[in-house]
Amino acid sequence: MNSPNDLANLKSSISIDPGNLSLLLESFIRDYMEKLEREGIILGLSGGIDSAVVAVLCKRAVGAEKVVALIMPEKDSAEKHKKDALHFARELNIEARLIDITPYLRKFGSYKLLLLNKVPLPGKLKDTLTKKAYKFYERKTGETPFSASISGFKDKKFSSYLAKGNAYYRIKHRVRMVLLYLYGEIENRLVVGAANKSECKIGFFVKHGCDAATDIMPIMGLYKTQVRELAKYLNIPSNITGKSPSPDIIPGITDEEAIGIPYEKLDLVLLALERGWGISEIADTLEIEEKQIEYIRNLTLKSEHMRRVYLPELQ
Amino acid sequence: MNSPNDLANLKSSISIDPGNLSLLLESFIRDYMEKLEREGIILGLSGGIDSAVVAVLCKRAVGAEKVVALIMPEKDSAEKHKKDALHFARELNIEARLIDITPYLRKFGSYKLLLLNKVPLPGKLKDTLTKKAYKFYERKTGETPFSASISGFKDKKFSSYLAKGNAYYRIKHRVRMVLLYLYGEIENRLVVGAANKSECKIGFFVKHGCDAATDIMPIMGLYKTQVRELAKYLNIPSNITGKSPSPDIIPGITDEEAIGIPYEKLDLVLLALERGWGISEIADTLEIEEKQIEYIRNLTLKSEHMRRVYLPELQ
Repeated sequence: MNSPNDLANLKSSISIDPGNLSLLLESFIRDYMEKLEREGIILGLSGGIDSAVVAVLCKRAVGAEKVVALIMPEKDSAEKHKKDALHFARELNIEARLIDITPYLRKFGSYKLLLLNKVPLPGKLKDTLTKKAYKFYERKTGETPFSASISGFKDKKFSSYLAKGNAYYRIKHRVRMVLLYLYGEIENRLVVGAANKSECKIGFFVKHGCDAATDIMPIMGLYKTQVRELAKYLNIPSNITGKSPSPDIIPGITDEEAIGIPYEKLDLVLLALERGWGISEIADTLEIEEKQIEYIRNLTLKSEHMRRVYLPELQ
Repeated sequence: MNSPNDLANLKSSISIDPGNLSLLLESFIRDYMEKLEREGIILGLSGGIDSAVVAVLCKRAVGAEKVVALIMPEKDSAEKHKKDALHFARELNIEARLIDITPYLRKFGSYKLLLLNKVPLPGKLKDTLTKKAYKFYERKTGETPFSASISGFKDKKFSSYLAKGNAYYRIKHRVRMVLLYLYGEIENRLVVGAANKSECKIGFFVKHGCDAATDIMPIMGLYKTQVRELAKYLNIPSNITGKSPSPDIIPGITDEEAIGIPYEKLDLVLLALERGWGISEIADTLEIEEKQIEYIRNLTLKSEHMRRVYLPELQ
C-alpha cells in the first residue's frame, strides 16, 4: 500500500530542472554531431511542440547556421501547423525548407486507401466523419482504433479498415524519414528525431518513421508533460505550445482523442508502472479507474514490437 | 598466445548444423507471425543468396500461400538478379510482385546525384568507370570508399562525392522499406528482413533500409559463410548461390570489391574479434596482415551508429 504522499512524490519526480536538462541535452546533441563527423543537423519541423523543442535545443547546441528544418506537410495536414512551423523557423533564424510530400504519397498510391478520400469533401466535414468513425469503432468493439492498430489484425472486427488506415497514415512519416536522410546524407548532417517517452512507451508513433528512425533522439527520455515544461523554459511561443497535440497524420484526430486519456494522467500512470506499482495502488493514488490503467499497461506491452526488430536466439 | 589448433577450433565453431538451425529459424518466424497477429509474411527478394534463404525459411515456416515477395529492381539493377528472383519465386510457388522503383527514385531526384548518370552510357562502361573511381579513391586516400562512407565526412577528401554517393544508393533500400511496410500493413503481413551478421557488424547495410528496418530478421545471427552453408542445405539453386554477392545498389560493385576482403576471411576475423583475440594472435593464426585486421575492427567500431539510435543518459 502506498502512503498518502506518494502522489506528491510521483508528481515531484516527473518535474524537471529545465535549465540543467537543457544544458545536458544540448551537449548530447553537440557531442554526437562531432562524434559522427557531421557538419550540421537536419530535423523535421511539424508545427508541434516536440519538434519545436528539439529545434531550439539544436540551435542552442550548434548554432542556428548549422541547423536545417524540413517542413513536410501533405494534403491532409492542417494549414495552421505548416504556418506555425514556417514562422517558428524564421523566428529561430534557422534554414527552413518547405517540401509538400503530397506528390510522393500520390506516387505510392496511399491516398486511395482511405474511403473518405474517394469523394471530394470539405476539410471540416472530413474531420467530423473521421471522428465519428473513431467513436463508432469504439462503441462497436470496446477498444480504441489506436489500441487495435498497434498489433496485427488477425480475427479482428473491421480489420481491413484498420489495416488500410495504418498503411495510410504511417507511410507519411516513413516518406518524411526518407527525405530527412536524403538531404542529411547529401549535406553530411546528423538526422535528429523528436520522439518522446510517452509516445514511445504506448506505441503512439510510426515504426521506422521520421520521429524514431533517426541518428539521435534528444527528448526520448522525457515524458510529454516534461517536454511541455522544457518548452516553457525555452520560450516556445504559445501558438505552438497552446494547441492540442496531434500527430497531424489522421485528419481531425488529436493525440488525446486517439489515445483516450490526457497526457497529465498518462505520464503519471506510465511512471508509476515503471516503478512497479500495482494496478490498484495506481488507481487509488491517482484516482483513475483500474480499467484505464490496464488499458495503458496493455498498450505498453502490445507496442513492444514497434520499439524493436526481433532476432532469433541462437545459443 | 593461441595454440596451433585454434584455427581448426575457430573454423569448427563457425560451421553450423543446418538441419537443426533451419528448424529453429522456421519456428522463430512462425512464432512471430502468430505473436504479432499477422496473417502472412512479406519480404524483399533481390536475386541474392540472403533473401533467397529467408524466402525458403518463410515458406517452410508458414506455407507458400502465406508468403509474398516484392521484387523491386530499379534502373541500375542487374537484369540477371531480377530474373533470378522472379524465377526463384516461381520455383518456390510464392506470390511475387514486380515493382520497378525507378519512378519513385526519379520523384525523389536521387538519380541526379551521380555524375555518371548525367550522360547516357552503356551499362558495362558505367560499371567499369565506377570500379575505376573506387580504385582511384583508394589510391588517393589509402581508405576504401566503403570505409570512408560509414561515418560522416567532415574534413575528408572528396567528401561531396562520398556524401552524394551515400545518398544515391541508400535511398533505394529506404524506398524498398516503405513499399514493404505499405503492402505489409494493408495486408496484415509480418515484414521479414534478410540482414546477416557479417554485413551488420561491419556496417555494410543501409541504416533504416529494407534489410534491417523490418519486424524480424531471421538470419541476423548468421555470418555470411553460415548463410551459404544453410543455402546449400536448403537447395537454393546455383544461379543464386554461385554469383558474387553484391548489394546491387552501386552499379558494378560486388561486396568483396567494396569491403576489400572475402567473406571466408572476414567471418573468421569477426568471430575471433568477438572472442576477444588480439590483433597479432588473429594475424598469426589466420595468416592475415595485421593491417587488414585493424581495418575490420575499425569498421565494426565506426559502424556502431548504424546499428542504433542514440538517446541521452538522463540519470
